[in-house]
Amino acid sequence: MQSAADILRQRIRTVADWPQAGVQFRDITPVLQDPVSFRLMVQTLVVRYMPQHIDVVAGIDARGFILGAVVAHELNVGFVPVRKKGKLPFTTVSEEYELEYGSATVELHTDAVKPGDRVLLIDDLIATGGTMMAAKKLIERLGGAIVEGAAIVDLPELGGSALLRAAGLELFTLVDYAGH
Amino acid sequence: MQSAADILRQRIRTVADWPQAGVQFRDITPVLQDPVSFRLMVQTLVVRYMPQHIDVVAGIDARGFILGAVVAHELNVGFVPVRKKGKLPFTTVSEEYELEYGSATVELHTDAVKPGDRVLLIDDLIATGGTMMAAKKLIERLGGAIVEGAAIVDLPELGGSALLRAAGLELFTLVDYAGH
Repeated sequence: MQSAADILRQRIRTVADWPQAGVQFRDITPVLQDPVSFRLMVQTLVVRYMPQHIDVVAGIDARGFILGAVVAHELNVGFVPVRKKGKLPFTTVSEEYELEYGSATVELHTDAVKPGDRVLLIDDLIATGGTMMAAKKLIERLGGAIVEGAAIVDLPELGGSALLRAAGLELFTLVDYAGH
Repeated sequence: MQSAADILRQRIRTVADWPQAGVQFRDITPVLQDPVSFRLMVQTLVVRYMPQHIDVVAGIDARGFILGAVVAHELNVGFVPVRKKGKLPFTTVSEEYELEYGSATVELHTDAVKPGDRVLLIDDLIATGGTMMAAKKLIERLGGAIVEGAAIVDLPELGGSALLRAAGLELFTLVDYAGH
């Protein structure tokens, strides 16, 4: 029997030289588009997190919304979006982080997480880990306890997952690419 | 018994003067954050669309991903994202549309919809209708048949829903605000 990782790996599309020359972009849209692999991906996470008493799922703007919302719904818990700067209308906490060129900021509504909440943090892909690290800080500033960070794809050679683990974040990823 | 619309309306948060003075922003994040209203919202759509033989759900970047992905999963069909320009890595069709100041472009992967597919198009809110109209054109250019456009909130005074209906798009919205 094929593992979930094998099935998902076959569905993920590699687009060469996007968004720039030399990058092999891992495109998850074929996974989402196929109801079987979409369900396999979701249920792999649901089975993992059902026993872990999650209070809220936080999904990262924008592809993390897709998997995050479905997993939240399946776990019967709420979903909260971690958004790029200027997208959330209510009072927020915000974290700036470095990019290869320049910086970016993510925000979270101040009422999105309550002190003591057990939070599952979801994105589609871990590259340098900057966005997930900033999201971790936001959740912790509101008093949330992150049970785990989960993503569909890890690109371990970019160092993000090692950095996040070194910062104390447990991680679970479905498909790892040794090369990028 | 309260209607689904009444329950959702109580959860939607109105933020005054955001993103600019004079605008009453309808914030759906409290709906998503509450598992009961989140589920009520999703299941209202699922019950409506289960008998309608949907082939694929298209969700509009980025809040439309949240509801769209969950409804796709519950219907056991694929999810495809309609994205802002430059976010989709594979070959795309694109549509430009007018904003109050300037213009914007949305894109769809060319393999996201097959000719004859029955498509459910989902966003969070209908204001001027520009984004949903552009998404409609993208889906139709690929040969898809839109069963309906669905959104959580309609702001009918901004004219978008009337414009979309005049263009032949059936619409279903959960909560309508007479004022904006």
